[in-house]
Amino acid sequence: MAMIGGGPGAFIGPVHRIAAELDREIELVAGVFSSDPARSRAGGEAYGLDPARAYGSLAEMLAAETARPDGAQFVAVVTPNHDHLPSARAALAAGLPVISDKPMTATLDEARELAAVVEASALPFALTYTYSGYPLVREARARIAAGALGKVRKVVVEYPQGWLAGPAEGKQAEWRVDPARAGAGGCIGDIGVHAFQLAEFVTGLHVTELLADLGAVVPGRQLDDDCSVLLRFNNGARGVMLASQIEVGELNGLRIRVYGETGGLAWKQEEPNTLTLHHLDGRSEVIRAGTGLLGPDAARRTRTPGGHPEGYLEAFANLYRDFAELVRGGSAPLLPGAAQGLRSMAFIDTAVRASAARAGWTPLSI
Amino acid sequence: MAMIGGGPGAFIGPVHRIAAELDREIELVAGVFSSDPARSRAGGEAYGLDPARAYGSLAEMLAAETARPDGAQFVAVVTPNHDHLPSARAALAAGLPVISDKPMTATLDEARELAAVVEASALPFALTYTYSGYPLVREARARIAAGALGKVRKVVVEYPQGWLAGPAEGKQAEWRVDPARAGAGGCIGDIGVHAFQLAEFVTGLHVTELLADLGAVVPGRQLDDDCSVLLRFNNGARGVMLASQIEVGELNGLRIRVYGETGGLAWKQEEPNTLTLHHLDGRSEVIRAGTGLLGPDAARRTRTPGGHPEGYLEAFANLYRDFAELVRGGSAPLLPGAAQGLRSMAFIDTAVRASAARAGWTPLSI
Amino acid sequence: MAMIGGGPGAFIGPVHRIAAELDREIELVAGVFSSDPARSRAGGEAYGLDPARAYGSLAEMLAAETARPDGAQFVAVVTPNHDHLPSARAALAAGLPVISDKPMTATLDEARELAAVVEASALPFALTYTYSGYPLVREARARIAAGALGKVRKVVVEYPQGWLAGPAEGKQAEWRVDPARAGAGGCIGDIGVHAFQLAEFVTGLHVTELLADLGAVVPGRQLDDDCSVLLRFNNGARGVMLASQIEVGELNGLRIRVYGETGGLAWKQEEPNTLTLHHLDGRSEVIRAGTGLLGPDAARRTRTPGGHPEGYLEAFANLYRDFAELVRGGSAPLLPGAAQGLRSMAFIDTAVRASAARAGWTPLSI
Amino acid sequence: MAMIGGGPGAFIGPVHRIAAELDREIELVAGVFSSDPARSRAGGEAYGLDPARAYGSLAEMLAAETARPDGAQFVAVVTPNHDHLPSARAALAAGLPVISDKPMTATLDEARELAAVVEASALPFALTYTYSGYPLVREARARIAAGALGKVRKVVVEYPQGWLAGPAEGKQAEWRVDPARAGAGGCIGDIGVHAFQLAEFVTGLHVTELLADLGAVVPGRQLDDDCSVLLRFNNGARGVMLASQIEVGELNGLRIRVYGETGGLAWKQEEPNTLTLHHLDGRSEVIRAGTGLLGPDAARRTRTPGGHPEGYLEAFANLYRDFAELVRGGSAPLLPGAAQGLRSMAFIDTAVRASAARAGWTPLSI
Repeated sequence: MAMIGGGPGAFIGPVHRIAAELDREIELVAGVFSSDPARSRAGGEAYGLDPARAYGSLAEMLAAETARPDGAQFVAVVTPNHDHLPSARAALAAGLPVISDKPMTATLDEARELAAVVEASALPFALTYTYSGYPLVREARARIAAGALGKVRKVVVEYPQGWLAGPAEGKQAEWRVDPARAGAGGCIGDIGVHAFQLAEFVTGLHVTELLADLGAVVPGRQLDDDCSVLLRFNNGARGVMLASQIEVGELNGLRIRVYGETGGLAWKQEEPNTLTLHHLDGRSEVIRAGTGLLGPDAARRTRTPGGHPEGYLEAFANLYRDFAELVRGGSAPLLPGAAQGLRSMAFIDTAVRASAARAGWTPLSI
Repeated sequence: MAMIGGGPGAFIGPVHRIAAELDREIELVAGVFSSDPARSRAGGEAYGLDPARAYGSLAEMLAAETARPDGAQFVAVVTPNHDHLPSARAALAAGLPVISDKPMTATLDEARELAAVVEASALPFALTYTYSGYPLVREARARIAAGALGKVRKVVVEYPQGWLAGPAEGKQAEWRVDPARAGAGGCIGDIGVHAFQLAEFVTGLHVTELLADLGAVVPGRQLDDDCSVLLRFNNGARGVMLASQIEVGELNGLRIRVYGETGGLAWKQEEPNTLTLHHLDGRSEVIRAGTGLLGPDAARRTRTPGGHPEGYLEAFANLYRDFAELVRGGSAPLLPGAAQGLRSMAFIDTAVRASAARAGWTPLSI
Repeated sequence: MAMIGGGPGAFIGPVHRIAAELDREIELVAGVFSSDPARSRAGGEAYGLDPARAYGSLAEMLAAETARPDGAQFVAVVTPNHDHLPSARAALAAGLPVISDKPMTATLDEARELAAVVEASALPFALTYTYSGYPLVREARARIAAGALGKVRKVVVEYPQGWLAGPAEGKQAEWRVDPARAGAGGCIGDIGVHAFQLAEFVTGLHVTELLADLGAVVPGRQLDDDCSVLLRFNNGARGVMLASQIEVGELNGLRIRVYGETGGLAWKQEEPNTLTLHHLDGRSEVIRAGTGLLGPDAARRTRTPGGHPEGYLEAFANLYRDFAELVRGGSAPLLPGAAQGLRSMAFIDTAVRASAARAGWTPLSI
Repeated sequence: MAMIGGGPGAFIGPVHRIAAELDREIELVAGVFSSDPARSRAGGEAYGLDPARAYGSLAEMLAAETARPDGAQFVAVVTPNHDHLPSARAALAAGLPVISDKPMTATLDEARELAAVVEASALPFALTYTYSGYPLVREARARIAAGALGKVRKVVVEYPQGWLAGPAEGKQAEWRVDPARAGAGGCIGDIGVHAFQLAEFVTGLHVTELLADLGAVVPGRQLDDDCSVLLRFNNGARGVMLASQIEVGELNGLRIRVYGETGGLAWKQEEPNTLTLHHLDGRSEVIRAGTGLLGPDAARRTRTPGGHPEGYLEAFANLYRDFAELVRGGSAPLLPGAAQGLRSMAFIDTAVRASAARAGWTPLSI
């Protein structure tokens, strides 16, 4: 695997590296860790790479790696959003599969372009919607698909954070509040889109219509930092998606609740090894990771026995394990790809436009 | 105290009785427990009253009680919503203060009429917005008023229930889903209004604008059973109010989170003796009832030492304690009265109309 | 009902009053609230009693109340431990049933004497082991009795508090650390005995042998303030009882876990409306008060629907409801009486002596 | 790194591999994964090793690896307890540092022998007391060392599990209940020793005396499966260690509470990213991993921002990171080594002997 981005000071680069290598099916061997060659070399050194394979530009890397017999077999795109399209396009053009940070691109138009490129390439392409890698999220999906809740009627998905309650400082924050690098969505593109994807992933439903209320709460902020979006799903279910980056005290509080005709279900990212199921008769059941209660898909994505907590890195690694399967020519039906990426970009785009126009209910179409 | 309503099979009548008498400042001595005289007598017997004071009609009771030297000194209205206005009006006309179940009336017009009657009477009038009686809700209000969060920016208040996920059966459920008795609002009038009142109570802010999405999820239901309402407050803060009665597994999950420039705060009704405060530096503090950390208002409303849980009945009793103070000629500034009742009715009315019209953002004015 | 003790400054007197009256079957009408007549009158006034019935001595009260046609029908003993025997003996001698604070007396010898007096009187006698009044404690007992866990193998019961971590100040604390008023046990007699009683109550088993390690952690303290006691039950089950009053940050953290051959169960006093059941196949079930999942005994002791929390006062009231039934000539098989009181005193006595002698395993016999 | 043990079907082998490699400072390059050469080769293949480096015996491996210029630089011992001494001794004799599963050996005598060998070798030696690798355990230790609780007075450490409540089946269970492979301790040696080590690690104190009550609850079991041990520490503090493998419903519920003169502290392994601190004034503070509230040692052992949970594998990796530092010649003062191993073996040995003899309080000396 070769990485684009993720150099010194980045949070997400090391996460990709750990996640990719966790199951020993993948090894980071090359990268362009910065557009500045010296910083790129420093990045390679930090990862312990052969210095010759810490490249100064993407073009250079693609040329060199595809020429080596032991060259990287795929590329991980770990840059700010505005760079996702050009990087992925170049890698695919060089014949290399791509796994990319979400959201797919900075704009919906770019996403359409990239989707077309992916399709034309016939190469594996995946997006790291991390939370869909958690075993109990997979279990929730499987249970709903098997009818545990009856027909789904209501979805509440929330993603509270507080880290942007003050001025956006530091490398992680700066680009996220800058429209030139993040795209048109702030909070909605950074975390709202995770919540949206999780809701569709867990329920197996599609959002068909939305009503968005995005705001910039911190004075001077150009992009939204607080979002409330009402939803309708293709089976008629009602939904709510709340995301915020100004809720002081919240760290990474993604959680989802789904209610159907005959049951309910709840999962929280910060305590990810527990899934709660509610039944019409009043019983609530707590399902824990690593026990014999998990279905095959969730069980296969668990590395420790019950009570030995797995977390964010292991969920991320589950996506890489799926991706490795794809690269080997296998199948990974639950791994988010270009179709999910397009839907997510349409979600961001529709929400941003509808909110700006105070447009009320607006169809979500792609 | 004399009660109107609350007879055999009612949940809320015994709750009023227990709450009123808990601190031994009030005694239930009379009532009209049903419009059917035999059932009313049965009600009186169940409460252990003098049979002569279980009346067959309100008019009869008011005449008799005001004629006795030891007659009831106020009336508690515990009937379905459509009866609140006539009962309260008659009691006030007889010179008796009134404490009534929320919402104030079945319609906004009725509420305006009742507010005028209350004002003209110059008698005490209160509404049992129970949740504002919890000690830690009072503490939350006091802390926010004292600036613990800085300027409030965001309010999320939720009220999930699941008991109407199936057909509405039984005395509690039937009238709540019947427009003739409940008024125009279903879930919004039954529990959404509690959430609204709690949000204004805790923050000291007023909602100025709302966007409502009310739905009837259960087939055949005439009134809404699931509500999502976006809010704006008079200081510019953003808000969300979610209430539902079809969320299987939820019992009475009212909770509120408030976020300001420098802190956040969270409280849940089902674990009411804990208040969590978040600070900008990452510290979260847990404040527990019955400890020395509570301010004077909350401390006075606590009857047990820390760790000996109080609950719903004690919160309800705190409202009666305030009301007894009013009846004695004292002051109870935090007890919800006609003004709060009117605001709440305007909230229901505006939400119902705006949702039906898909009207988008709509001013809340009274 | 007439109260002995519970005057100005006492915590437990008002608790008894509220609990006794909560269901309107009992009314506090008289009392000796202090051995000082002026303070006793002040106590009566605080409770809103007829001043003539706030007596200056127990003898005076018993004479006066038994002479009145509307005299108190039973006596509640709410004094420090050393007074339990003389007060109860006098009341029983006057023909009045007695409900008393735990522990039964200050010493085991006194308890034996009182048990004999109770038996000879053939009058109702009960001890307010409050925690056995919680609906979900009753439910736990019923489930275990019905075989939900299979044969019980292990019991862990803990009662952590922190309020005596510093010097014992204030009326509540002072007598509890004074051997002359509390008896030979400090923490073990104040709260350890609750834990012991809860363990026997929930499991239906009897402790047959114990190994006690009691200590006085705070310098200068004469009685134990920290206790660890290992247990054996009559069916061979193993157990642990931990109680402490010096664990800073703990309020009233009584909790019990019971494990059997086929299941486990957990309950916590500070969140009393939830009972967790574990099954051998890995499923955990959460049972909540006020739902249809409770058996008849627990259901009858619940006053609010699910999600409307009840607490300490309501649990206490459930004991008074049982006691009222006894006084009316009915039956209340789960209400702790003299037999349970004797067992508890034997527990305190055995633990104190065995610990002082570092005696190792010691039989618990009565 | 070369591994001894951890072949097909083992839980702990893959855990070591992931943990060792997580930070890319260590690579698994060789191993003896079974005493059966074919199974050893299968193990090597499962790990993706060069087939030539999956050896049939330890002697073969040590000879081959020390002869290669790129040979493994240390050995990880991942076998059942009875094999720890011979494997570690051989590796050290070959000049290779050793990191080993706990407990150190099967018996205290073996531990003494191994400690002497380690000392003579002057090579790095470490034991994977995993739980001391959690960032918030390190934070707890640092806070106590800095005086956050004042003088420590009481320690309660619990380790409930339920997986051996029925017959011990499967590779993980079988050897643990077999004295020939596990040593004299069952539950006490498998998990009690973790609890003991955690208590000493977090408090910085030493246990000086203990009273042990070990039992075999499941019929036919030869080793203890349920343990209660009372403790005294070298500063006079009192303690309790409870561990069990028959508590149905418990997965891996290790938790510790420490109480001092001025504060208290609580941590639970199953929710490892939170540490609660209690203060004398009633405030409780929640400290979360990944926030700015952690001291330098805990912060350095955290790989994700707050709210992105890390777990068991990351805690384990923190020990390997420390060990890598040792192997490079650096220092890792918090990594458990031979001294901690000896203390732990003395704990097991003393507890087993004292319990069998019903000996009461028994000194713990090494």
